[in-house]
Amino acid sequence: VIEERLAQQLGFLLEADALKSVQRRTPITGGRMENSAEHSWHLALFALLLAEHSDEPLDVGHAILLALVHDLVEIDAGDTFAYDTAGYETKAARELEAAERLFSLLPADQALQLRGLWEEFDLCTTPEARFANALDRLQPALLNCATGGGSWIDAEVQREQVEQRMAPVGAASTALGAVIRERVAEGVDRGWIRP
Amino acid sequence: VIEERLAQQLGFLLEADALKSVQRRTPITGGRMENSAEHSWHLALFALLLAEHSDEPLDVGHAILLALVHDLVEIDAGDTFAYDTAGYETKAARELEAAERLFSLLPADQALQLRGLWEEFDLCTTPEARFANALDRLQPALLNCATGGGSWIDAEVQREQVEQRMAPVGAASTALGAVIRERVAEGVDRGWIRP
Repeated sequence: VIEERLAQQLGFLLEADALKSVQRRTPITGGRMENSAEHSWHLALFALLLAEHSDEPLDVGHAILLALVHDLVEIDAGDTFAYDTAGYETKAARELEAAERLFSLLPADQALQLRGLWEEFDLCTTPEARFANALDRLQPALLNCATGGGSWIDAEVQREQVEQRMAPVGAASTALGAVIRERVAEGVDRGWIRP
Repeated sequence: VIEERLAQQLGFLLEADALKSVQRRTPITGGRMENSAEHSWHLALFALLLAEHSDEPLDVGHAILLALVHDLVEIDAGDTFAYDTAGYETKAARELEAAERLFSLLPADQALQLRGLWEEFDLCTTPEARFANALDRLQPALLNCATGGGSWIDAEVQREQVEQRMAPVGAASTALGAVIRERVAEGVDRGWIRP
């Protein structure tokens, strides 16, 4: 007989499988749209390899935890596209409800831990959260450039919208801010972003 | 102008995107086959939540790093299915070649770090590697049970094959070993695994 605590952990891990079925608006280089589970893996790898470019000192391991957990609430709330203004109006309420249900599947101490990580990412209260948020904006921009415009074209975005969306990148990392400026300029040059 | 080091890191991270296109033989609950990127994310979450069940003390953060990195060589080498005997004969050589090419895209210090993590996982030289390997066998077994037999049915596996494949789970964790025994017995009862 499996003890109750382990059964709760396994139940949550099976529920988490559903994040692989949440589709984002960014194409991958393989030609289809990205899902939020593989996005979270990619973001954790970004954190591992790019942590040195954070302007604030940070704990890489903690930034990786934030990347792993930051999108779990999308299992219930769905992915809210970066340039979906109407979606953003209800995003906080939908995600709060999702957090209540999902994290409560876990033993109380781990529910608290994962909810804490999710809130920390969302509220940007630490250097790790500010850096993970920056990467969460950088990663789709790099994929857009690698796939010929990606979600920038689909959403018919304007330069100011992209620059506003990407502001946290430069705020967290001077080096990555320079990367984003280059990529946005390239996006405008190529007609992927409206000037 | 982006400095050379950062350009190498971004080049590697874009190359890593290809892991999302490496298909595994395990179905997800959403109804399609899993890919190796989302599998790696899932495994990292397993490590975070189940680390307490390792019989040896371990560093959770380090186990998570192993999970994130363990399948990167599949970008070139492809996924070798657990019950593919012929594939296993060439697996080591294919993955070594992949490691040479892929990790050399990174700055030397990070190439060494990631290659070290991959070798550690592969050789099971530490408690973290033994536990991550155990999870890498547990996770598809749980998905098989959740999807009505999954790769066990497709590969027409026999009980002894599955038990041999799952041996590292019980070796790393008494509690997770008990879970696997239950699931294999269920698989046999339901006709997913040949007795």
